[in-house]
Amino acid sequence: MSFRAPVTEHEFILKDILGYEQIAATEKFAEAPGDVATAILSEAGRMCEEVIAPLNRAGDLNPAYLENGVVRTSPGFKEGFDAIAEGGWVGMSADPEYGGMGLPMSLTTSVMEMLSSSCVSLQLLPLLTQGQIEALEHHASDAIKELYLPKLNSGEWTGTMNLTEPHAGSDVGALSSKAERNDDGTYSVTGQKIFITWGDLDFADNTLHLVLARLPDGVPGTKGISLFLVPKFLPDENGNPGQRNSANVVSLEHKMGIHGSPTCVMQFDGAKGWLVGKEHGGMAAMFTMMNNARLGVGGQGVGIAEAAYQHALSYALERKQGRTENNCIADHADVRRMLMEMKADLFASRAITLACAGAIDMTTATGDEDWNARAAFLTPIAKSFGTEVGMRVSETGVQIHGGMGFIEETGAAQFSRDVRITAIYEGTNGIQAMDLVARKMMDGGDMANRIIDEIEEQAERARATHPRMAESVWQACESLRETTEWLVAQGDLNDRFAGAVPYLMAFARVLGGHYHLAAAMADQGGAREKLARFYINRLLPQHASYLAHAQAGAEGAYALTFEELAS
Amino acid sequence: MSFRAPVTEHEFILKDILGYEQIAATEKFAEAPGDVATAILSEAGRMCEEVIAPLNRAGDLNPAYLENGVVRTSPGFKEGFDAIAEGGWVGMSADPEYGGMGLPMSLTTSVMEMLSSSCVSLQLLPLLTQGQIEALEHHASDAIKELYLPKLNSGEWTGTMNLTEPHAGSDVGALSSKAERNDDGTYSVTGQKIFITWGDLDFADNTLHLVLARLPDGVPGTKGISLFLVPKFLPDENGNPGQRNSANVVSLEHKMGIHGSPTCVMQFDGAKGWLVGKEHGGMAAMFTMMNNARLGVGGQGVGIAEAAYQHALSYALERKQGRTENNCIADHADVRRMLMEMKADLFASRAITLACAGAIDMTTATGDEDWNARAAFLTPIAKSFGTEVGMRVSETGVQIHGGMGFIEETGAAQFSRDVRITAIYEGTNGIQAMDLVARKMMDGGDMANRIIDEIEEQAERARATHPRMAESVWQACESLRETTEWLVAQGDLNDRFAGAVPYLMAFARVLGGHYHLAAAMADQGGAREKLARFYINRLLPQHASYLAHAQAGAEGAYALTFEELAS
Repeated sequence: MSFRAPVTEHEFILKDILGYEQIAATEKFAEAPGDVATAILSEAGRMCEEVIAPLNRAGDLNPAYLENGVVRTSPGFKEGFDAIAEGGWVGMSADPEYGGMGLPMSLTTSVMEMLSSSCVSLQLLPLLTQGQIEALEHHASDAIKELYLPKLNSGEWTGTMNLTEPHAGSDVGALSSKAERNDDGTYSVTGQKIFITWGDLDFADNTLHLVLARLPDGVPGTKGISLFLVPKFLPDENGNPGQRNSANVVSLEHKMGIHGSPTCVMQFDGAKGWLVGKEHGGMAAMFTMMNNARLGVGGQGVGIAEAAYQHALSYALERKQGRTENNCIADHADVRRMLMEMKADLFASRAITLACAGAIDMTTATGDEDWNARAAFLTPIAKSFGTEVGMRVSETGVQIHGGMGFIEETGAAQFSRDVRITAIYEGTNGIQAMDLVARKMMDGGDMANRIIDEIEEQAERARATHPRMAESVWQACESLRETTEWLVAQGDLNDRFAGAVPYLMAFARVLGGHYHLAAAMADQGGAREKLARFYINRLLPQHASYLAHAQAGAEGAYALTFEELAS
Repeated sequence: MSFRAPVTEHEFILKDILGYEQIAATEKFAEAPGDVATAILSEAGRMCEEVIAPLNRAGDLNPAYLENGVVRTSPGFKEGFDAIAEGGWVGMSADPEYGGMGLPMSLTTSVMEMLSSSCVSLQLLPLLTQGQIEALEHHASDAIKELYLPKLNSGEWTGTMNLTEPHAGSDVGALSSKAERNDDGTYSVTGQKIFITWGDLDFADNTLHLVLARLPDGVPGTKGISLFLVPKFLPDENGNPGQRNSANVVSLEHKMGIHGSPTCVMQFDGAKGWLVGKEHGGMAAMFTMMNNARLGVGGQGVGIAEAAYQHALSYALERKQGRTENNCIADHADVRRMLMEMKADLFASRAITLACAGAIDMTTATGDEDWNARAAFLTPIAKSFGTEVGMRVSETGVQIHGGMGFIEETGAAQFSRDVRITAIYEGTNGIQAMDLVARKMMDGGDMANRIIDEIEEQAERARATHPRMAESVWQACESLRETTEWLVAQGDLNDRFAGAVPYLMAFARVLGGHYHLAAAMADQGGAREKLARFYINRLLPQHASYLAHAQAGAEGAYALTFEELAS
């Protein structure tokens, strides 16, 4: 079984559902009209199928390991990354002034999703590097940009993101890494960071660490944190890797999945670094990087779901059992139900991540605050729902394999193990949901209601051709509106937080119904209409129980004492 | 963090919710009144905490392996099994005539659940052996019973169950193993079997295989299959292990979890065996074994959920983060929500498995056909819902750990990997659900409706003290009744099968509400009432979306062609 890149599906969603032409019509993205987009996706898809996907199993079986302080990578990963770098895929959305291709994030999201399907462990390397590129573009000095960005965009050098410390995970402000000012304008950074993805590797000429640390006069909490660029090798006068910096890998984690991605404990001992952004303004710069990465992680969930779906479908069609029409297990109603659920949720989650990417593109192209707020609102939904679908679809993929799914050599289990981290890193799905109901509703629910209005407007239009589906989506959206109003009215944030995850899931379910309805209208009588009907009749109803939970408040969630929880 | 056996919780459910005194009042179980039950659970709990739980991690890190045809087991497993055997726990529900303790299955289910929490890889060995004991008690000749049962009950010898072949998984009737009649009344068995749990080990004196195979005159399909007892060592004239039989382990599987449990490919080459039951009547005997095992697997799900819950709660209380009241992550609303969901579902799934065990006990004690039908109806629900809760709770346990959950050394990931197989083996959860809506509704929905009536009767009684909770349970149950009527009316079984899993989940959700309501009545103003309110307000509503799916029929599930599924 080999991976087949879903290029047509991406094209359909981008062009027929999400109005890609609006993006291509902007001056900013004028060089990426529809036919160019198609060519780009096809080219990336070919690379994923032929070069990247064959590496996935080897990465799982031969994890990266530490040898004399250097990370040795999984077999074939160097060649795989070379292909990604040479294709220009690392810097595909980066500023052309520094060697990027300036393409829309919509296309990058599609390409990165296909890379995730192929080999998510390797995909993390360009993903993190892209996040660093974006942070430097927005916050670094021109000197830093000129020196570092071309190397990052070309893939010669790679990037990491150093936030977490042993006692400062989701609570970044509690970190204890320190920085001191040197006389030459540089800084000395000291501290230990954990969970550093691709913190070191043996096939890049240099690895650049973006490190959060506190200056001596930095106040406690997030407002006293600054961001520093700390290269593994200090560039010499020609900009080439020179003296080794005191930034070292101490150990690698032994993880449940993504074995091919080295997760490092990093030790900085007075390592030389350069300030990015303003002193004490590190969190703003880090958020640029994290927002990019959050959408990217949602795409990882979708990508792994796609791979797990294809893998399970292939097995279900090949596996002979019973005396049914086609003599395979895909003939069985329960297996067919599982395949349909997988495919329907794949569509919904992909549409949501690409809609978020499109909003980012329109923000970039127009600077419009409405688009910016929309992208910000959709980001936690794209991240959480994409990764939730990744987990559910991968789990169902194992289930379709039956006993063989639990045997590692079939590969179904690997998707399930790999995808598990996506619901955790870049802000757990709980953190995403809290972001949605608090920060993203500081506008009084304005953006939420604008999206809800759009969903209902489309449903009204759909009544002419798809009255029952339209009514289901409209009704679900009304319920979502009511709960949104209730949430916004809660002064005690804990009343929102206790139901934040169910609320996010309800919003995603309704958005999924919205995009499925759009697909049904675009493909009347076709397969997409049938898939939409399956989703709207059988999966959309979940919104109601999520909303009941979302609106139940904090008191009942805190009803048991710690002693009662433990008894 | 160490495992604490939930003895009080089991006692509460057995005595205060499920009416254990009814079981103890029968002649059959007169020797196990309430205080004896308490003593038994406490004793088993102590063993689990002190002897078994410490083995769990070592089993994961040091999988069983094959050496010169012999399975070498994980460190400490011999000593762990010795403790189980010496405590009499293997034969605790077995016939006292052959060395069993004759205790109710209710207590065995509780004890086996606690063993699953402690070390499910090891627990599988007594679980499979118990299944074999029950099959032999019901179907073997007196000579076989006298020779083998005492050794199995004492744990000197162990048992396996050999159904699956490479091309005959859920479709057992397709198997190709053969048996021939020998002149001395024995049989020669030849064939290959896969997925044989504890197919060999290095600390039992003998291992007995129950093998399904077809005699030369056996018709194709399940009706031509016979069951044979094939010992690893043929007993000599004194009943001691003698000549080595031609029953060998060919290889072990490399699995996602339960690494301490050796999963064997077994090869039988003219191995000497004895008929169990009648010629061509093997499936009936095998079903005895499987029904026992199905309830047991549900209990594994619950047990692993309990361990994962305790592990996550402990972490949430210890993990310092943020500036909250108790300065731990358990102060956060989203973490509290997760803990409450875990605990509420744990209660529901445990009550269902123990209710199923109680129905088995009443069947055993009274021979009453109604109790038998009730046990048969509850078995697939107990198996599927118990394992579903096991997966969800283990996954949430990882989530509560954040990034640390993905790191293997914390142990959270192991629960998630171990529990995954429980939704698959002993009949996948899809097979269970199909069994529920077809075979278990061949009575026209009679047993389903009787249980529904009881749920509504209790809800009526509860209106006096808990009007809102009672109304929610009653309404949910009415919806369940309507869908049950719809299902029974479907002549095309595929219309039932397409929604079988959602229907089973809805039934379990409502049953969970029923038992939570009983707990609320038994503990007014107490923690159980608060937990019940959480469940009924926030989790019970899921029944509605499951029922919508259950009643959607086959047509929409088959709407896409194979080509459309693949495009």
